[in-house]
Amino acid sequence: MKHGGDIQSFKHLYGGEILDYSSNINPLGPPENLRDVFAKAFEDINLYPDIKYRELKDQIGKYLGCQDKEVIVGNGAVEIINNVSLMFKRVVVFTPCFIEYIERPEVLGREVVKLKLNESFEIDENLLEENIAEGDLIILGNPNNPTGKRIAKEKLLRIHEIVEKKKAFLLLDEAFYEFCPDDYNSIEMFYGSRNVCVIRAATKFFALPGIRLGYAYGTGDMVARYNKIALPWCINTFADYAGREIFKEADYIKESKRLIGNQREYMISELNRIDYLKAFDTDCNFVLVKLLRGTEEDMFSYMIGRGVLVRKASSFVGLDNTFIRLAIKDYDKNSYVINCLREYSKWKP
Amino acid sequence: MKHGGDIQSFKHLYGGEILDYSSNINPLGPPENLRDVFAKAFEDINLYPDIKYRELKDQIGKYLGCQDKEVIVGNGAVEIINNVSLMFKRVVVFTPCFIEYIERPEVLGREVVKLKLNESFEIDENLLEENIAEGDLIILGNPNNPTGKRIAKEKLLRIHEIVEKKKAFLLLDEAFYEFCPDDYNSIEMFYGSRNVCVIRAATKFFALPGIRLGYAYGTGDMVARYNKIALPWCINTFADYAGREIFKEADYIKESKRLIGNQREYMISELNRIDYLKAFDTDCNFVLVKLLRGTEEDMFSYMIGRGVLVRKASSFVGLDNTFIRLAIKDYDKNSYVINCLREYSKWKP
Repeated sequence: MKHGGDIQSFKHLYGGEILDYSSNINPLGPPENLRDVFAKAFEDINLYPDIKYRELKDQIGKYLGCQDKEVIVGNGAVEIINNVSLMFKRVVVFTPCFIEYIERPEVLGREVVKLKLNESFEIDENLLEENIAEGDLIILGNPNNPTGKRIAKEKLLRIHEIVEKKKAFLLLDEAFYEFCPDDYNSIEMFYGSRNVCVIRAATKFFALPGIRLGYAYGTGDMVARYNKIALPWCINTFADYAGREIFKEADYIKESKRLIGNQREYMISELNRIDYLKAFDTDCNFVLVKLLRGTEEDMFSYMIGRGVLVRKASSFVGLDNTFIRLAIKDYDKNSYVINCLREYSKWKP
Repeated sequence: MKHGGDIQSFKHLYGGEILDYSSNINPLGPPENLRDVFAKAFEDINLYPDIKYRELKDQIGKYLGCQDKEVIVGNGAVEIINNVSLMFKRVVVFTPCFIEYIERPEVLGREVVKLKLNESFEIDENLLEENIAEGDLIILGNPNNPTGKRIAKEKLLRIHEIVEKKKAFLLLDEAFYEFCPDDYNSIEMFYGSRNVCVIRAATKFFALPGIRLGYAYGTGDMVARYNKIALPWCINTFADYAGREIFKEADYIKESKRLIGNQREYMISELNRIDYLKAFDTDCNFVLVKLLRGTEEDMFSYMIGRGVLVRKASSFVGLDNTFIRLAIKDYDKNSYVINCLREYSKWKP
């Protein structure tokens, strides 16, 4: 189970519709106005997408607060992770992390240095400094997956200093950015820095995993180098047209942040009231949970029998088989999941 | 101008709608029933595509005459070319050819050996045999782009023998397969061979460049190795759902083949009646044209002034600036283009 969201593989285990708590999608669903957008895309489906994605990049640039020539687009965040990895010889990551930070560089023949997050799942800056060299690529999830924690602003500034001093390059994967508290914006913080690239994505926050639209900020020079190695027409017309519209949805964005903010508080506090669970603090729309009794496999079997797909977490390097990851959705679904978890004690005392 | 189809870059040069003769899309447009398919895709856009593309591969397998585990899917044929290139250390191509056979392996750090097609744009088997080694990947366009010619069946069998003898691997790019005469089917011919992979695509024949759907046949072993290096969710939901339907359109397929077959004959004969042109024989829906007077640039400027975007061909390795490539569309458009070309003699005597 390398990735969440694979309902197809497990639907035979439950008679009804499965609640997918293994992938972390905005429970509000996609912005309403997309129906018209997709109708327009259908009209143009016999044309190639604009190979330079001019209008799409213009809209993303406005949303991110940068110029269009500073925008990268990709077939999901993972294609951008892949291509940026190709631009460097060696990659440094902190585990546990999204598996693709390790797999994509390895597939491309790059050496990957795996450092460990400390016991609180935080980055040890000294460990970073000791282990990076000139020309390295450092990939950090911010917030990190599966732990859900953002790097604190001051710590991130110190990490950037180390990266600058060592002449390395920092790739921040912020695919869950919009779910987080508004305490800082890393694109603003590092705007113009030649050794930073920040990935964002439409997948999670705009509830569009089906369209595959990732994007990133980098300097004009970095983006020009990226464009030379990227596949042509990496975004299809439906994703292109959707991306021209979704960022204008100010009310949707606000409402989604409010909903997840409230439900995050609710989930953490309820989970931690269950005696065999420890829920880690999170800044986004999923939560890592330590099982103090039983294994991920026990919990997976129990929950799928109740129509809930949870994410077993042992496939994350550095986690054993006593962790699961849960999405945070709306109140009705979350309270159902919490109730199932409460009753697990009766099932496996 | 590395690729055709870039109307966005040239639309300011002409007041009306531009006829795109630089990309080679079925003039019938996409199959009719896709509107419903895309409506269904829209309903599921908040779900990840099936990470294993089970139903899509099942439909493609039926269409190609192979099992679903023998099917590769990719974000356009070019992603498959990219990923197969990554599986080998050295790549051998014959020029002129589609630029991505050279660029994708080079981007991935692979050595590329560029052999030349002979004066009739055919493969010299001796040249191939002298230049390939164990473990090489040979990429051949069949039909080749920009020349439009299929490899004759007997020649292809001899090429395959050489590839087998040398323990190399043959990647046939048949993105234009359905437009060709029905003289042989390379998937049938090489079914079960461990050193062949055959790419096809929805882009051209099904008039769907906007959805990005390439696919390929390979043995189960080869496909399993491919899947280990491919990006997850490379096909978006719209492309996935379209791909489950289009291959059932028997009437559309037949009518498209008939239309292009007739228009191919018409275009070649009319072009060769124009004294300053030499049109090369073609098996598909585009034609390479040698200009016996003037350059591609002259012709490009002249034609864009008449609302027709032609493909300058000097960006193909091995062609100078006296070639253009033209699409083959329906009679009305083709005869307009032929008329413009006839009048070029008055414009540039």
